[in-house]
Amino acid sequence: MDKYMQAALEEARQGLTEGGIPIGSVLVHRGRILGRGHNRRVQSGSTVLHGEMDALENAGRQAASVYRDCVLYTTLSPCPMCSGAILLYGIPKVVVGENRTFMGEEELLRSRGVEVEIIQSEECIELMTGFIEASPELWNEDIGE
Amino acid sequence: MDKYMQAALEEARQGLTEGGIPIGSVLVHRGRILGRGHNRRVQSGSTVLHGEMDALENAGRQAASVYRDCVLYTTLSPCPMCSGAILLYGIPKVVVGENRTFMGEEELLRSRGVEVEIIQSEECIELMTGFIEASPELWNEDIGE
Repeated sequence: MDKYMQAALEEARQGLTEGGIPIGSVLVHRGRILGRGHNRRVQSGSTVLHGEMDALENAGRQAASVYRDCVLYTTLSPCPMCSGAILLYGIPKVVVGENRTFMGEEELLRSRGVEVEIIQSEECIELMTGFIEASPELWNEDIGE
Repeated sequence: MDKYMQAALEEARQGLTEGGIPIGSVLVHRGRILGRGHNRRVQSGSTVLHGEMDALENAGRQAASVYRDCVLYTTLSPCPMCSGAILLYGIPKVVVGENRTFMGEEELLRSRGVEVEIIQSEECIELMTGFIEASPELWNEDIGE
């Protein structure tokens, strides 16, 4: 696991410490982390701040040319909303910690030319598996089920 | 224009009054407005709070069964991010003020079973046309271009 996925995993663990849903993300531009974040459903009552969205929000307003030179790291396969944000901003590459506990819109992203790399990290899988077992209702709410 | 699109248009105009991007939205559950909002890029420096996202955020945490009985009204055709949020939460119907100044992911939504109704409101078209002419760079930033 490289230092960017490690940072995303730290965000996810921070979320769990806060009583939240343990999904984290970092937006990286030419090797520098522009924004980092984690799911805020519990902490802020937010329905839109998934981990990836929180990282994008914390990165602040950027020119299209910046996004087009970014890589988004996320501990979990991106849901339709986060995948849509990736498409909106034209982020060309997404590195995904795991897609075993949830399969997002990877095929849609690939069909639009986004490179999607799956790490399949045991640490990410264990973190989500433990959370889903402990809080199935909260998890279902987060994915609209 | 029904009262829900009128409310979305009021949100859009409020956004313009604040110096922001004039796109508004309301989330309606069985005839009651659960949440309303408008684009917050300028006002909050937000990259994720498009009008539809702001309405979803302001509606607060809801059960999947609630979203599945909602209609989302938006003054402008929903971008990939907002369309993804509609898919995530399983909102079955979207009413769009206009798609002349921007064509969002209507085909993706329809391909996933979402009903998309286009009003093609002259008021909505005029509002966006005037804004885009006055602030083309801000508009391009909002749609990742």
